[in-house]
Amino acid sequence: MESPLISAVGLVAAFCTTLAYVPQVWRIWKTRSTADISLGMFALMNFGVALWLVYGIAIGSWPVAIANGATLVLAGAILVLKLKHG
Amino acid sequence: MESPLISAVGLVAAFCTTLAYVPQVWRIWKTRSTADISLGMFALMNFGVALWLVYGIAIGSWPVAIANGATLVLAGAILVLKLKHG
Repeated sequence: MESPLISAVGLVAAFCTTLAYVPQVWRIWKTRSTADISLGMFALMNFGVALWLVYGIAIGSWPVAIANGATLVLAGAILVLKLKHG
Repeated sequence: MESPLISAVGLVAAFCTTLAYVPQVWRIWKTRSTADISLGMFALMNFGVALWLVYGIAIGSWPVAIANGATLVLAGAILVLKLKHG
């Protein structure tokens, strides 16, 4: 078992790397502009995060599954907005 | 121990979510334009990925440490380019 301090570092890490997508979604929603956003980045990111979600479910790790499920919704929104606004 | 198939899913997931930043770095490098990139996203992402790196080292997980070390270099480059180009 890892110490509570180490678990807390992992939890804050998961929280930050998931929440990080929110200001990007918000910015695109306001500006309707995605010219500088890389389609390749968000296509690959969504594919990878979907695999992390499958991996989390497969190993029974709910922190991995939940963090990546939430990330998939946010990174998926950015991908959809990129495809819409070009 | 997880099965080799499940480990492979995790490995491909880590590879994709790290490599995803490369086309974004490349795009900014070419266009020198970061207006649509959210500073909040990459500030929070770099902080979170740095914590994942600390977590990976603390639990002795070299896949977590190496994947997040590489991600930190790439996401860090995007943050520096955003601060430079605005």
